[in-house]
Amino acid sequence: MQQSVERWDIFEATLDGPAGGNPFIEVTFGARFAYNHRIIDVDGFYDGDRTYRVRFMPDTVGAWTYTTRSNVATLDGQTGAFECTPASPGNHGPVRVRNTYHFAYADGTSHFSVGTTCYVWNHQDDELETQTLETLKTAPFNKLRMCVFPKHYTFNQNEPPYHAFEPLPSPPAPLPEGEGWRFDFTRFNPAFFRHLEQRVGDLRNLGIEADIILFHPYDRWGYSTMPAEVDNRYLRYVVARLAAYRNVWWSMANEFDLLEAKTEQDWDRFFQIVQESDPYQHLRSVHNCRSFYDHNKPWVTHCSIQRSDLTQVSHWRELYKKPVVVDECCYEGNISHNWGNITAQEMVHRFWEGFSRGGYVGHGETYLHPDDILWWSKGGVLHGDSPARIAFLRWIMEAGPAIDPRGGYWDLNQSTDLADNYRLIYFGIHRPAYKDIALPEDAAYTIDVIDTWEMTITPLQGGFSGNCRVPLPAKPYIALRIRKQ
Amino acid sequence: MQQSVERWDIFEATLDGPAGGNPFIEVTFGARFAYNHRIIDVDGFYDGDRTYRVRFMPDTVGAWTYTTRSNVATLDGQTGAFECTPASPGNHGPVRVRNTYHFAYADGTSHFSVGTTCYVWNHQDDELETQTLETLKTAPFNKLRMCVFPKHYTFNQNEPPYHAFEPLPSPPAPLPEGEGWRFDFTRFNPAFFRHLEQRVGDLRNLGIEADIILFHPYDRWGYSTMPAEVDNRYLRYVVARLAAYRNVWWSMANEFDLLEAKTEQDWDRFFQIVQESDPYQHLRSVHNCRSFYDHNKPWVTHCSIQRSDLTQVSHWRELYKKPVVVDECCYEGNISHNWGNITAQEMVHRFWEGFSRGGYVGHGETYLHPDDILWWSKGGVLHGDSPARIAFLRWIMEAGPAIDPRGGYWDLNQSTDLADNYRLIYFGIHRPAYKDIALPEDAAYTIDVIDTWEMTITPLQGGFSGNCRVPLPAKPYIALRIRKQ
Repeated sequence: MQQSVERWDIFEATLDGPAGGNPFIEVTFGARFAYNHRIIDVDGFYDGDRTYRVRFMPDTVGAWTYTTRSNVATLDGQTGAFECTPASPGNHGPVRVRNTYHFAYADGTSHFSVGTTCYVWNHQDDELETQTLETLKTAPFNKLRMCVFPKHYTFNQNEPPYHAFEPLPSPPAPLPEGEGWRFDFTRFNPAFFRHLEQRVGDLRNLGIEADIILFHPYDRWGYSTMPAEVDNRYLRYVVARLAAYRNVWWSMANEFDLLEAKTEQDWDRFFQIVQESDPYQHLRSVHNCRSFYDHNKPWVTHCSIQRSDLTQVSHWRELYKKPVVVDECCYEGNISHNWGNITAQEMVHRFWEGFSRGGYVGHGETYLHPDDILWWSKGGVLHGDSPARIAFLRWIMEAGPAIDPRGGYWDLNQSTDLADNYRLIYFGIHRPAYKDIALPEDAAYTIDVIDTWEMTITPLQGGFSGNCRVPLPAKPYIALRIRKQ
Repeated sequence: MQQSVERWDIFEATLDGPAGGNPFIEVTFGARFAYNHRIIDVDGFYDGDRTYRVRFMPDTVGAWTYTTRSNVATLDGQTGAFECTPASPGNHGPVRVRNTYHFAYADGTSHFSVGTTCYVWNHQDDELETQTLETLKTAPFNKLRMCVFPKHYTFNQNEPPYHAFEPLPSPPAPLPEGEGWRFDFTRFNPAFFRHLEQRVGDLRNLGIEADIILFHPYDRWGYSTMPAEVDNRYLRYVVARLAAYRNVWWSMANEFDLLEAKTEQDWDRFFQIVQESDPYQHLRSVHNCRSFYDHNKPWVTHCSIQRSDLTQVSHWRELYKKPVVVDECCYEGNISHNWGNITAQEMVHRFWEGFSRGGYVGHGETYLHPDDILWWSKGGVLHGDSPARIAFLRWIMEAGPAIDPRGGYWDLNQSTDLADNYRLIYFGIHRPAYKDIALPEDAAYTIDVIDTWEMTITPLQGGFSGNCRVPLPAKPYIALRIRKQ
């Protein structure tokens, strides 16, 4: 048995138990973890082959103990202990909401969300999945949207290596290739979930949050139309397996409003199940196509939005009083669908527009590929010109504080930190020859002119105070950074 | 006296009358024009120097007669006759709404509105005004927004040559230069209006509609805060003088919602006065800043809109069921105000976005100038790169039919004529590598790939029918034109 685990890493207890009947249904298993008088109840899960596991992510350095519980005698009342050691460098813990509109890791480090999307990179072959991880090593992204289930869609016709449930024999009638799957929805396929965990862990090791999409509509296997009790059991099983991964975010769905078999009450219930089951209260959201889920509902931790108009970030912040993450604002690419053929410049512009209004934006890439390997879905390598600029933006974000909008009707993409020691103004498609700025009289400020596309930062000479006219290059995609000296 | 006038040109009858008292207030004057049994009552006006005039724009070729009416004996019951001759080439009559969302001249020629804005070009000196007209001769615009009153605003500090009313002595207290104007609001200054008419006529001679702005908020003289009875008299006087100009459109205001002294009831009344007084029912609209006037009101002939997001044209068409003219969508330029510093490419894009959704868009230009001569306000010469592309668009528009949107959520900027013999698809910032198009099977179509910025038209080889995949250059600002062979 494991003797120690670092803070926000995974402690796992493994026990042998019964394999007969249907352990997924018939056996309850979990453990109560304790640190002095503090106790945390955690669900375990059956991992096949007579193996029962319970995982735990300790948030406090020191001595922890645990006692298992089960309706099976051999799994019940087993005890153990482990030491939680300090987090190693690069392990900042899970991400939380901070200051209403922003994010921070549990250790207090700011998290400026810079996402990308590879919906089913984890349903490809090992070679491609390894290539995706290689690409991510040097890419600017610290969050990645990915689906639990495989995807059936344009450019996504390949059969995945694993299925989430045990297959049943197909019906005798001949069916087109790839159709006609029938599953025993009472029996999970542990290999499927072990692979998912491996990939979530791979992302964690790269410092990337896994925005795990629990349901989606692009389906030929039946995952989008399972009965309610299967949905519920599936959610609890995923949470029991994955919640101890510190980099997990729960996304109830991609384009939830395209799942015709689900109602608003179903989505409410899914949120509630995840919220009840997750001992660590990872972030929870749901992503839309046409219409929004009501992000005001109390179990939603932040807005996950698909929209092209990033100026609305200011509006959504006011409307929902939560962090605004525009996870999908079209993709850099050249496919026929309008959601997948914007330029790198437009993608970078949308990142800046969103960030300069106090929100966060997600990337995706959809260039036609002879083998249909489009980053947005399968991963692979990046072909576009936006990631380098997004890295430049992330570097600027992380060098400054979290910012919130200020300004008037024509001037909303001006944001400051809470103390107004830092301002960022992004001019977007506008290209003024100068900008008049009112700064406090009693302090001196430095001003940098940032070319967001060329990735240059030009400090203006001297310190600035009071009313100043700042000369600008009169070209689009310029930002100003103003910092108190 | 005049013996003949061409159709939709101006017949004017002039009579000598009293100059004593206040003729503007005390004398009523007008005429009843008749063509066989058809009669049209028209208001005349006092033009100073004992001169009374009544103007008439005949719409029917043939023999017309008239009889004056007045409360002054010498101006009453005078009769005359004239012959209306056919319109000469280039005279298509006034512009009307046609097919709910579009415009046509009275002779049936389509009018594709391609506007520009030179708010107070008519309040400059002769040299500059002449230069503006020279520029307009070769510019692509067939409509121009201009103010009756002079303008007080950034870049607009110069005193105009004429004032609309007789000045009163300023009060004795010393006032800053250019302030302290006091007018006798019961006495118009005929020279002011003669100059306005001259410029409206100059535009007519260039084939340009004059979108005459009756009120605006940029004011240091008091024109924006006159008493109601002065407003009413002013409106009737302007209509009496100008309605016979076939190229007149009535714009109740620029940024009506910034005129704080006016209420919605005032704007309703202004529309009604103009509607009652104008024998020719020229087009009527009102232009907004932040909030819209209700364009559904029955006296509004078309929407005049200030907004940056041209994708909303589809929405406004549905909402108001009237032609949508986005008269202001920001200006090409480099000034500090965000409404005046978009690129030429963005301006051209907005024109195409609006037109491809079945609307019409207006141009403006605001480049910093050492003498503050910015086209948007004072005219002069054009410096930008958008007019050449707007000319290209106008050429394409006029070679085709009026078009209305069709298509779905991601595909709304696809429009067709009523018979679907012509389609225009504009991809805007999107840059697909191909587009799948469903055409009728039973006809053949030609397809042109249009680069809206480079101004090239590339016909694709062969005829197209049924479902086709059209290769595209995968760059932004491309349009497709599809025409039945």
